[in-house]
Amino acid sequence: MEFRLIDRIRERTAQQREDVRLGIGDDAALLAVPAGQELAVAIDTMVEGVHFPAGTAPADIGWKALAVNLSDLAAMGATPAWALLALTLLRPDAAFVDGFAEGFAQLAGQYRLALVGGDTTRGALTLSVAVHGFVPPGQALTRAGAQVGDAVLVTGTLGDAAAGLRCLPSRMDIQATARDFLVNRLNRPTPRVAAGLALRGRASACIDVSDGLLADLGHVCTASGVGAEIDAALLPCSPALLGAFDEAAVRDFALTGGDDYELCFTVPAARMDEVRDDLAKLGCGATRIGRIVAGEGVRVRGADGAWLEPARSGWDHFAP
Amino acid sequence: MEFRLIDRIRERTAQQREDVRLGIGDDAALLAVPAGQELAVAIDTMVEGVHFPAGTAPADIGWKALAVNLSDLAAMGATPAWALLALTLLRPDAAFVDGFAEGFAQLAGQYRLALVGGDTTRGALTLSVAVHGFVPPGQALTRAGAQVGDAVLVTGTLGDAAAGLRCLPSRMDIQATARDFLVNRLNRPTPRVAAGLALRGRASACIDVSDGLLADLGHVCTASGVGAEIDAALLPCSPALLGAFDEAAVRDFALTGGDDYELCFTVPAARMDEVRDDLAKLGCGATRIGRIVAGEGVRVRGADGAWLEPARSGWDHFAP
Repeated sequence: MEFRLIDRIRERTAQQREDVRLGIGDDAALLAVPAGQELAVAIDTMVEGVHFPAGTAPADIGWKALAVNLSDLAAMGATPAWALLALTLLRPDAAFVDGFAEGFAQLAGQYRLALVGGDTTRGALTLSVAVHGFVPPGQALTRAGAQVGDAVLVTGTLGDAAAGLRCLPSRMDIQATARDFLVNRLNRPTPRVAAGLALRGRASACIDVSDGLLADLGHVCTASGVGAEIDAALLPCSPALLGAFDEAAVRDFALTGGDDYELCFTVPAARMDEVRDDLAKLGCGATRIGRIVAGEGVRVRGADGAWLEPARSGWDHFAP
Repeated sequence: MEFRLIDRIRERTAQQREDVRLGIGDDAALLAVPAGQELAVAIDTMVEGVHFPAGTAPADIGWKALAVNLSDLAAMGATPAWALLALTLLRPDAAFVDGFAEGFAQLAGQYRLALVGGDTTRGALTLSVAVHGFVPPGQALTRAGAQVGDAVLVTGTLGDAAAGLRCLPSRMDIQATARDFLVNRLNRPTPRVAAGLALRGRASACIDVSDGLLADLGHVCTASGVGAEIDAALLPCSPALLGAFDEAAVRDFALTGGDDYELCFTVPAARMDEVRDDLAKLGCGATRIGRIVAGEGVRVRGADGAWLEPARSGWDHFAP
């Protein structure tokens, strides 16, 4: 069965890459990493009912399964190259597979990313994608380099995906255009690959916002041995989000909502304007939201200048 | 959560490898493929109730999840190096994770294989492992090179794992030592990595027996544009299997039972004895079971010289 379902996906995701010496169809793929490049690899899983609601369009699932992985490569400053797909389905469902493949291929095609291996099995709907990218030695963006005094920035806008999830089942009085925007941000996140490449050699630390800003910036602080101070008033939020929810909800979504897949990064203050200008040219832009300080953990200052105590710090599937 | 569970596994699977520039704990791992080597990559998923029975010991699951993937590298003649793990669990279960990690680490340690990334999510018990290995350019074993006149061989013995699965829930009158042997072959398959390396530059085609001999040799025939003739009387079977089941059941297990993870390969007839001698020194041995012929498909000759018509050709999770 592996062949028939994976073949349907392969047909829709065909990419000619000279570095793929042998693709899908044997016991393993054979790949050639370009000379002088390191390999960046990551794996992420999405489970129906946990990472996306039952009823999500197959094409959206295909897009997102790849997007969340490309976001990991973006956060490292790596150039995407290859992916492996493990697809577990309750039953062989050609319509699902074709839709999935269509969404996957739409995003893969933007990066000439080749699907080089896969496995399909029977079980509750679960998708694991492993991605591979290239980065020159020593130039990868890690979580560990933030320095006291660095500016903290994020690309794009925060909180949209969490708000989109809230919109899905509800009959809230939200304008259709705003709801569509927010739900699209949830279902079709844009991995910030070009931004990650532009940050090579400039950002001192970088992470993608998958679990929520506070949680993910907290990982940067832990890895770097520093603390961070964020100004809630500086958080970049979309007009759709601002128009659809009240101020407290917007702040909660922006601070703790997962699934935005924006990049949160730190740069020396002297380079901040130059980096902002370059990311603006890439379309996503970047906004300064705070700074790195001595100490540990992330603190958030409200509009009145007082420190906030957020109710939760991001979502954590297996948190106690 | 990702961190806590994956950390428990990482602690138990620590391997120092200079080619791991950055391991678990950032958005992606950073890896260095040795100069002059190609990368072999594969991914395989195991689902509870499909690939292993509910109640299987966590350590056996950990071993097997890695073993089935190492078997893919073995079938390519690749040297194992790194793995990624996607672990989906109904609930955070430290005892399960510790047992799983123990079994995984027992096998990983034999190859100095490093776990370089992972994701843990909530859902029905499902495990995907992606493995990475090295092979010199042009030396990988594929399914596509079998030539008319080549001998067909298999390592080890066939049918044990399928028989072991049959033993599990039953109260059949099988000697405890035989049952233990067969169940161990099911739960703790030995990937034939050393055999795969020994076959580099000698086998004309190679595959691992995961779906059953007929199905897997059929893949070799299709990829190579040839047919194969097998003698049922030549199939290598363990004393435990022969002692526990009648002749017809033994033949069925050996021809169509999955999960053996032996290598089935083809060699020019003139090199067969040399290859057999070398694999005998590696402990697994290899047995000639037939030959490659013009045409297509796999035919099996019974002990009386007549062609058999097997009832099924291996298991296929999503077969119609």
